Amino acid sequence: MDIVKELSKIVNPGRISTAAAVISQHNHDASYHPEADPDVVVFPENTEEVSAIVAFASEHGVPVTPFGKGSSLEGHAIPYEGGISLDLGLMNDLKAVGDRDGYVVVGAGLTQFQLNDALKKHGLFFSVDPGAEATLGGMAGTNASGSYTVKYGTMRDNILDMEVVLPNGEIIHTGSKAVKSSSGLHLSGIFAGSEGTLGIITELTLRVYPIPEATVAARAVFHDFEEAVTAVVTLRTAGLDLARIEFVDADSVTHVNHFAKTAYIEQPTIFFELNGEVEHLQHQLKRMEELLKPFEVVEFLAETDQAAQERLWDARHNLAYYYIQGAPTKQMLVTDVCLPISELSAAILHARRAVDESGLEAGIVGHVGDGNFHIIAMADFADEKEVAAAKLLHEAVVDYALAHDGTCTGEHGVGVGKKRYQSREHGTAYDLMRTIKHAIDPHGIMNPGKLID
Amino acid sequence: MDIVKELSKIVNPGRISTAAAVISQHNHDASYHPEADPDVVVFPENTEEVSAIVAFASEHGVPVTPFGKGSSLEGHAIPYEGGISLDLGLMNDLKAVGDRDGYVVVGAGLTQFQLNDALKKHGLFFSVDPGAEATLGGMAGTNASGSYTVKYGTMRDNILDMEVVLPNGEIIHTGSKAVKSSSGLHLSGIFAGSEGTLGIITELTLRVYPIPEATVAARAVFHDFEEAVTAVVTLRTAGLDLARIEFVDADSVTHVNHFAKTAYIEQPTIFFELNGEVEHLQHQLKRMEELLKPFEVVEFLAETDQAAQERLWDARHNLAYYYIQGAPTKQMLVTDVCLPISELSAAILHARRAVDESGLEAGIVGHVGDGNFHIIAMADFADEKEVAAAKLLHEAVVDYALAHDGTCTGEHGVGVGKKRYQSREHGTAYDLMRTIKHAIDPHGIMNPGKLID
Ligand SMILES: Cc1cc2nc3c(=O)[nH]c(=O)nc-3n(C[C@H](O)[C@H](O)[C@H](O)COP(=O)(O)OP(=O)(O)OC[C@H]3O[C@@H](n4cnc5c(N)ncnc54)[C@H](O)[C@@H]3O)c2cc1C
Ligand SMILES: Cc1cc2nc3c(=O)[nH]c(=O)nc-3n(C[C@H](O)[C@H](O)[C@H](O)COP(=O)(O)OP(=O)(O)OC[C@H]3O[C@@H](n4cnc5c(N)ncnc54)[C@H](O)[C@@H]3O)c2cc1C
Repeated sequence: MDIVKELSKIVNPGRISTAAAVISQHNHDASYHPEADPDVVVFPENTEEVSAIVAFASEHGVPVTPFGKGSSLEGHAIPYEGGISLDLGLMNDLKAVGDRDGYVVVGAGLTQFQLNDALKKHGLFFSVDPGAEATLGGMAGTNASGSYTVKYGTMRDNILDMEVVLPNGEIIHTGSKAVKSSSGLHLSGIFAGSEGTLGIITELTLRVYPIPEATVAARAVFHDFEEAVTAVVTLRTAGLDLARIEFVDADSVTHVNHFAKTAYIEQPTIFFELNGEVEHLQHQLKRMEELLKPFEVVEFLAETDQAAQERLWDARHNLAYYYIQGAPTKQMLVTDVCLPISELSAAILHARRAVDESGLEAGIVGHVGDGNFHIIAMADFADEKEVAAAKLLHEAVVDYALAHDGTCTGEHGVGVGKKRYQSREHGTAYDLMRTIKHAIDPHGIMNPGKLID
Repeated sequence: MDIVKELSKIVNPGRISTAAAVISQHNHDASYHPEADPDVVVFPENTEEVSAIVAFASEHGVPVTPFGKGSSLEGHAIPYEGGISLDLGLMNDLKAVGDRDGYVVVGAGLTQFQLNDALKKHGLFFSVDPGAEATLGGMAGTNASGSYTVKYGTMRDNILDMEVVLPNGEIIHTGSKAVKSSSGLHLSGIFAGSEGTLGIITELTLRVYPIPEATVAARAVFHDFEEAVTAVVTLRTAGLDLARIEFVDADSVTHVNHFAKTAYIEQPTIFFELNGEVEHLQHQLKRMEELLKPFEVVEFLAETDQAAQERLWDARHNLAYYYIQGAPTKQMLVTDVCLPISELSAAILHARRAVDESGLEAGIVGHVGDGNFHIIAMADFADEKEVAAAKLLHEAVVDYALAHDGTCTGEHGVGVGKKRYQSREHGTAYDLMRTIKHAIDPHGIMNPGKLID
């Protein structure tokens, strides 16, 4: 069977490609995972086309891997079994803005940057902000989160409804525009984070929030990261209404200074943001300074200037890219454990030791308000010793997290890279996940080899 | 087969009952739905017993209906196909309090009142507050919410992990103690709201919050409910941080005055709560008064006195009971639609007209901050005309909600009473729910006849 010929009956041939350049844009992600070519890349323009493509694929047992921006970090979007890479990029409309209700309806291929640009004039913003440009469909696929999650929740928390094309080509809605519901089984929850293994998300209805009256960014520098993490726990327990709480270790501050041309003190640092009404912010900032008094804070600095704030957050967001630029011959492995916050300090200490033992160039950063931190490790994946060291490092932090009530992945997801931790983490529940996967995708055509075997 | 004899091999016979009094405690719920006796009621003491009971039931095709407090409103816990009523009441331990992390681990039979009593000394509270004493397992079963949901979310939003016994007797965990995760399929989401049709929840790990420094309750009385609802939309859109926003119509205020011996003005009223730091509250209260200025507010009153606040919230919480007391020969039907808040005013107007046409004694109340409202209608379910009027009324408000981006049930769930709206609301997604149900419970022993056919 000639797939391209068959697909041409469904979509305009101009949107079907086997060109080397297009194939190689769809054969990798943003991490160390090995490349694998799709047989063909298709760019659907609407839900009906997606449905027809999937129905065709299902009938002929052709694997379909949905593709957003390919920014995921565990091989999620790499089509290891070939077949169709389904690029949602053209389905990027902002279809509706529910100003009074606080929702938007978007095509799955719209990115979070595009969405926030378009929302500005409505005085609204979308809160989930992973550190790479990503599509909203891809972000639902991995249940992404970001620096604002500590206040506004994860991707899953912000989904009201999704339009999904099932493996048999049927089109369903997983929710509604009502902000809560007890009707039927909660399909939004299970499709969010399913990494394209249960169906293709074509449209999303997402919560958005009023842009706050004001924001303040603050930076607190500590002698060691244990002090830093303990300080975060103290602020959290005191019920301080923080919008962002980001930990950056000394090595990472050095990278920031080098690449962003900043002059931050090169010691463990917490970047904060408070947002809301001006009066409230002043009050919260004062409480924060008081709560930090018992700690040996090397420097505490609040930035109200908008440009200085943006510089700070850009630096934080670009950190991974600084590591990549700093080690151009190497590739990136990012760990992503998440633990109860009371376990965090010991977990980071353990991670720091594991990094030292690994001998790899690596920094530790994290959305510590949620108990989530990353080791960004650079390794030469052609060098067996470095590969072994990277794998051992990953293994060590995951084992630690699982032994301390945590999860192997707080936000990046499983893909192929964390599949080996799944039965360890979920036990018998992993069998149930397999049962559900098999019931929804009996022929196993949806992103085969990811998340679930 | 003698079920009781077989069950006696699994649990102490003292916790297996066929006594008329026990059977009749387990053959009804809090609504108009007809009674149906279980063959036997079993009171397990631990998860292993639940697992053995379910495995036995599965092997012999015996229906199992989990039972919490039986406070649900759509026949959820009534064992229409007989078999075992599995009462979780003895599994009511508060097993752990994670002070620093903000979680508790509880047995499924603990009630929300018991939990909050026990949490006081920790300075913590659990936020989900349906208007009846209910078990946390039952609340997860229906994905309950309450007056605090507008600020703290639904039951589903507050579940970190559940221990669940599957229909085959296997014991799984649906999550972990990490506050976010992208590992595996999100089972917590799908078990919350599954109404006992997928498995038995035996233990829950739930989020809890610090008791706020201070609270203020406020009452705003309006000439008509359209003004009232529009005012709520205005406050919500302004981003005011309200903890509770409850609408009570004139008829319901009359009931409150009569039974609670209050003297509230008998006009449409919004009950508010603000909570947080004293300074913040004062500021918010001032903003609220300003935002309400354009409206014709008949009375606006803030209560800082604790006793007056409690009286107000007790009155709101007891409303359904006042209607029941007011019509002792009748039974209660409660509708539960939820819509985008921009649709709410027209929806309540439509509901008011439908009530008038029905000729039934009925009031309208609601968690209007979420777009959720109830008609509490009293009808004589032995009188065919009143039954027909009640059904027509329910049908009318559900049709309206579904035509305006809403859901047939914001919090009470489906049970048997809202099954007929399911395919209308979910379309082809209802088939998928059936597929999932069948995959998890192939013999259909778990609470048969509820939620999904
Ligand atoms: C520098 C850097 C920083 C990052 N920081 C964060 C962070 O802070 N938080 C975070 O969560 N992640 C982060 N990530 C990871 C990544 O950005 C997220 O995983 C993101 O959600 C991926 O979106 P995408 O559009 O690139 O999806 P892709 O990578 O294209 O796909 C991701 C997965 O979703 C599936 N998928 C894509 N589109 C759809 C669809 N329409 N329907 C169904 N399935 C679909 C794919 O098949 C794949 O399994 C970071 C990545 C980088 C490179
Ligand atoms: C006056 C009044 C006011 C109410 N107000 C509200 C409100 O504001 N918000 C709201 O959401 N609800 C409200 N309700 C409805 C009711 O309180 C909720 O549905 C509550 O969640 C039911 O809890 P329960 O313990 O009584 O469960 P039950 O009624 O015993 O059971 C409910 C369902 O869950 C299942 N179930 C019970 N325990 C388990 C378990 N351990 N594992 C799996 N499944 C289980 C049952 O089989 C059944 O399907 C109100 C009810 C009344 C009478």
